[in-house]
Amino acid sequence: MILIDVTMTIYELGETAIVSQIIEHLNIEFEDCAILDLTDTEYLVATTDMFHRKTDFPEGIAAWQIGWMCVAGTLSDIAAMGAHPCGVLVSMGLPDLEPAFVDSMIDGMNACASECGTRIIGGDTDSHQELTISGTALGRISKGRILRRKGANIGDLVCVTGYLGTAGAGMKALAHGIEDSTAIKKLFEPIPRIKEGTRLAESGAVTSMMDNSDGLALSLYQLAEINRCGFVIWADSLPVLPEIDTDLAVYAGGDFELLFTVAPERLSDAEDACELTVIGEVTMEGVFLEAGGIKEIEQRGYRSFPC
Amino acid sequence: MILIDVTMTIYELGETAIVSQIIEHLNIEFEDCAILDLTDTEYLVATTDMFHRKTDFPEGIAAWQIGWMCVAGTLSDIAAMGAHPCGVLVSMGLPDLEPAFVDSMIDGMNACASECGTRIIGGDTDSHQELTISGTALGRISKGRILRRKGANIGDLVCVTGYLGTAGAGMKALAHGIEDSTAIKKLFEPIPRIKEGTRLAESGAVTSMMDNSDGLALSLYQLAEINRCGFVIWADSLPVLPEIDTDLAVYAGGDFELLFTVAPERLSDAEDACELTVIGEVTMEGVFLEAGGIKEIEQRGYRSFPC
Repeated sequence: MILIDVTMTIYELGETAIVSQIIEHLNIEFEDCAILDLTDTEYLVATTDMFHRKTDFPEGIAAWQIGWMCVAGTLSDIAAMGAHPCGVLVSMGLPDLEPAFVDSMIDGMNACASECGTRIIGGDTDSHQELTISGTALGRISKGRILRRKGANIGDLVCVTGYLGTAGAGMKALAHGIEDSTAIKKLFEPIPRIKEGTRLAESGAVTSMMDNSDGLALSLYQLAEINRCGFVIWADSLPVLPEIDTDLAVYAGGDFELLFTVAPERLSDAEDACELTVIGEVTMEGVFLEAGGIKEIEQRGYRSFPC
Repeated sequence: MILIDVTMTIYELGETAIVSQIIEHLNIEFEDCAILDLTDTEYLVATTDMFHRKTDFPEGIAAWQIGWMCVAGTLSDIAAMGAHPCGVLVSMGLPDLEPAFVDSMIDGMNACASECGTRIIGGDTDSHQELTISGTALGRISKGRILRRKGANIGDLVCVTGYLGTAGAGMKALAHGIEDSTAIKKLFEPIPRIKEGTRLAESGAVTSMMDNSDGLALSLYQLAEINRCGFVIWADSLPVLPEIDTDLAVYAGGDFELLFTVAPERLSDAEDACELTVIGEVTMEGVFLEAGGIKEIEQRGYRSFPC
């Protein structure tokens, strides 16, 4: 049993507190995936994610894109361990939809799995008022190559794949009534960084890695806690598409990029593995943004609980 | 793309039709678990199940029992393949509960996993109006020993573990305002037949197997379709607790027993593996009940969709 403040509800306590308590209760590691011994030389990694129509999928999204997003979000956690995906399961709570909607959703799931070199291997359906999908992805990775959140060293460079704040810009565009933009497409059809993750793992140059789906800020705070370190992020180095500001790049969630650390002398090996941007460095403590002056990055971003 | 009747909704078409369409669309096998190559000699089996507060958990159930039931339902599919479980993941959509409720639920999940020789290895939480839990279980089984739904031969004996209709009797007791009975405890705290499943697989005596969670009748119809065979079930042989009638034993869902077929000459090997009851035999066609005369078993039982 764990000690909890019984005068507060779980929403008041917040997701971070509840997840910490569950993790402590079960004595499991706080990683993007669970890690199981597969053979003497290989791990199986497994991850599960739940999505709901109202809270996880913006208005205007197509059935095909709902399917794609679920599988992409789940496979992003496999990418974050540097693993090769070997299957996705989906359980679905379905309201009374048209068969064509379900069919299109399954098509989207399958397309995303296919894009990542894997497939939907099984699932479950039942009836539910609000469309709810839980995706579980499995992957394999050699024991010597697995990338964990823990491992960053002071002086390491902080790197990311792709662009930051794109999904957030997509959300903003939707809120302004824009229906079609690069950012909206990236929000609805994110590409899990499986290729980049596996190549970075094979490079041996990466000391810690996770995905940034809750936003850069929260991800940095999680890495800081696990590695008992700090970060300085260089605002001018943040990779952003045109018209996306630093605030979105730092705080918005929904991107599925890889955030990782590399020893400076191994940077060229990481660069050989995939396209990346160096955005800062690992320090002793604190999570700061250097933008002319230096200021603390706030611990906020995408959270699943409403408060 | 699959051909579907676009004038009907998925509830009108029914779960069986939709699941068949999805399975065909994805070109996957209709088994209790997905099956993946692990090594030259072993398979990984994986299964996922979604549960909702209103549709899957009767009134009066405790938080601990909700946790137990989710994990039990998922591990039952691992048992049905004859596999050894190696981990369970749970994703949870949580309303604004008290922390103690969540804690107790996690305790129940853990207790059931523990009972089956495994543990909760990871998960995901987010907020959702109705408590929704998706469990995913993983297992390992040597390639020569895996038990599938397909494999029954005409003349095989039909066997089950434990008692039939017990969970149904528990539901009936609850509907009559009874709060405490053996049947209610069996409904709320089913024990997945992992021990029996693994021993039956090791015996080499079983030709086909599945669990009977949707009820005996629907399970028989599924086996009949896959194996292109029929069944005669002997009403007098059905193993039931006192005061449970044949109707409950045949049609009620919610039990997590194993339903399997054995060649008559191998029955003693199956009996050495676990306690079982022979309830009928595999025939050419039709699913019948012998009770004095002979009558067709109806194709009804537990279904997830409301119509």
